[in-house]
Amino acid sequence: MIVDIINKKRLGKILSKEELKFFFEGYLNGKVTDYQMSSLLMAICINNMTDKEIFDLTDIFIKSGEVLDFSDIEGIKVDKHSTGGVGDKTTMIIAPIVSSLGVPVVKMSGRGLGFTGGTIDKLESIPGFRTDLNLDEIKKQVKEIGMVVTSQTANLAPMDKKIYALRDVTGTVESIPLIATSIMSKKIASGADKILIDIKVGTGALLKTEKEAEKLKKIMIQIGNFYNKEVRCLITNMDNPLGTSIGNSLEVLEARDILLGKEKNSLTDLCIELSSNMVSMAKNISITEAVQQVKKALSSKIAYQKFLEFIKCQGGDIEKIQISPKVVKIYSKKQGIIKKIDALKFGKLSVLLGAGRKNKEDKINPTVGIKLEKLVNDKVNIGDCLCKIYLDNEINLDEVDQYFKIEEE
Amino acid sequence: MIVDIINKKRLGKILSKEELKFFFEGYLNGKVTDYQMSSLLMAICINNMTDKEIFDLTDIFIKSGEVLDFSDIEGIKVDKHSTGGVGDKTTMIIAPIVSSLGVPVVKMSGRGLGFTGGTIDKLESIPGFRTDLNLDEIKKQVKEIGMVVTSQTANLAPMDKKIYALRDVTGTVESIPLIATSIMSKKIASGADKILIDIKVGTGALLKTEKEAEKLKKIMIQIGNFYNKEVRCLITNMDNPLGTSIGNSLEVLEARDILLGKEKNSLTDLCIELSSNMVSMAKNISITEAVQQVKKALSSKIAYQKFLEFIKCQGGDIEKIQISPKVVKIYSKKQGIIKKIDALKFGKLSVLLGAGRKNKEDKINPTVGIKLEKLVNDKVNIGDCLCKIYLDNEINLDEVDQYFKIEEE
Repeated sequence: MIVDIINKKRLGKILSKEELKFFFEGYLNGKVTDYQMSSLLMAICINNMTDKEIFDLTDIFIKSGEVLDFSDIEGIKVDKHSTGGVGDKTTMIIAPIVSSLGVPVVKMSGRGLGFTGGTIDKLESIPGFRTDLNLDEIKKQVKEIGMVVTSQTANLAPMDKKIYALRDVTGTVESIPLIATSIMSKKIASGADKILIDIKVGTGALLKTEKEAEKLKKIMIQIGNFYNKEVRCLITNMDNPLGTSIGNSLEVLEARDILLGKEKNSLTDLCIELSSNMVSMAKNISITEAVQQVKKALSSKIAYQKFLEFIKCQGGDIEKIQISPKVVKIYSKKQGIIKKIDALKFGKLSVLLGAGRKNKEDKINPTVGIKLEKLVNDKVNIGDCLCKIYLDNEINLDEVDQYFKIEEE
Repeated sequence: MIVDIINKKRLGKILSKEELKFFFEGYLNGKVTDYQMSSLLMAICINNMTDKEIFDLTDIFIKSGEVLDFSDIEGIKVDKHSTGGVGDKTTMIIAPIVSSLGVPVVKMSGRGLGFTGGTIDKLESIPGFRTDLNLDEIKKQVKEIGMVVTSQTANLAPMDKKIYALRDVTGTVESIPLIATSIMSKKIASGADKILIDIKVGTGALLKTEKEAEKLKKIMIQIGNFYNKEVRCLITNMDNPLGTSIGNSLEVLEARDILLGKEKNSLTDLCIELSSNMVSMAKNISITEAVQQVKKALSSKIAYQKFLEFIKCQGGDIEKIQISPKVVKIYSKKQGIIKKIDALKFGKLSVLLGAGRKNKEDKINPTVGIKLEKLVNDKVNIGDCLCKIYLDNEINLDEVDQYFKIEEE
């Protein structure tokens, strides 16, 4: 029976809800092995799923655990999700912005997958910071300070959790149906009223083309409709790393600096766009109006104050954050203008440095990473420092300067 | 990196020999997990492999263990392999025929997997029969009596052994490149000079269509060429069970009766075809000439004498073979002509009876099985005995009469 279901999908046939239920519930209770699940997942990656299969699987994922209910917290709860990219620290920036404007934020985040980092890993680089809040603690904190960012509770779509970890190490991450099912089941089980999805496209994202992103957008909005939840999707570029840093501690500090206004770059613009959409959905106001409110939250530093309040409230001490003392500077061998910074290569480098995981069990080193000293469209001369590598192991960095595509003027 | 290689094949790209080597050798030494291997195998099943990839993988399989050398045994050694079917006892019949004509036969056989039986399981139903001969014993016996049929030695293509077991439980059996690689690596490592492959096609075989069989034939001949070994492939039908019996002891007795001339049916014809091809390849003579020699070996009973000599030489006592005393007869509820006997259903029934394995660790019961009393094209009346079931457990046999497709004249 187990093998029959795998064979069916191998041959490109459609699985019934009963077959999906039997197989995926069997995986959760140990009757279906890891090697059988990875085989089916690969067949799904290549042979795809129908919309009906995607709805069915999302439903099975949701019902594998509890569905949270935040109706006792006043206001419309808007959740946000990013499909992930290199250097994506937007959650740490936009959650305080939105919360500082009176919109309650309950954000359950994940850990790093492949070459893309996870918000929880990043927040855990702050000494003392707790990411394992239980439901009572979550509700209490939202009522007190209006925001919380924590790990997915153990019993929230547990099936997705187990499968997510397996996909990461079996080359079965890049599948529209599996990405849609994974994201939407978690978001719906998290109890949000409305959902904003930031779909990243480009060399440094899971999705490489606009076409795939449009497909994912369509199916996620359909799943939302199916559950009576408004879903908005933004498709944003991820050819270059987001902002200036990659690596856990470094990204927390960058988020702080963006909120402080000390750093300003395309990441700032993206965060304004995302938080304005969340505010617009939550308050039912126009984007123009929402953008004004968001900009004011930044310039007045109320978003920054919320960021500090939130970290303190979850036990973190941002002053104690550690960065590896071993630094290697990478210098330019060319003169010209930076046209592109290879996000994928920097993402993979960050995994080699220890900022991401090669295997499910790997421990992350929060102190290592990359700080870009030059960004796209910057002019450089031979000998200019392009980036700094914070490391604590011996790896070959000879080709890192070539991750910057520099063209003569 | 392991996941990069899986991703490459997921996207339908071609893997280099270095990548294949890294991945498959990593599996043998434990660096690549079962769930990563099954994911890659599924990607190969769906996205296929180029001829170059198949040659490379075969070479990696061969080199994972030792390559046997029988050059000190005089004469051209022709090996034979069947892709497996229900009631396939041809090896036990054709090896004595070919050997009795002066062609040395060293045949390494396997155990049953899925609904198809294995020659080694069948021979082990003969009390005292040894299937674990070492290389010295194999060579000694071939020199003495001109034939041996034994288990694959432990160190012959060990990579194939490990992967075959995984494929069986992950829905990745039905892949032309993987079947070709598995068969040809074992045959080449077995040290044969020439190879005859019996590709079975039909409802009771792994391959269901002529088209797939033709593809497999083409690539196996090419692999043979690559190693300078003549390979001949026959494509033979497997819609109905082969011969009259399914089950280990029963099949040994049927093989004896075919060699004795006591039973004569389409199995006899198939055995003549296969052994004539082996003789023709070994002696470099025409098929017509080889057929004459084979028919003479049968009618003169020298092949039967060789069969008895071979069993005795490996310690077996065919007189002591046991058949379960508990017999259920299945009667026809219809009148007409038998158009088809469902090989797949009888194969699955034999597993339920205990003649085959549901799991790798299962013990086989050699005494149980099925004896067909009517064959395709036979006339039957209501109440005629269609087959006898030899069993020692309680299973439902109510539908067995429907495995015979009977049409009114």
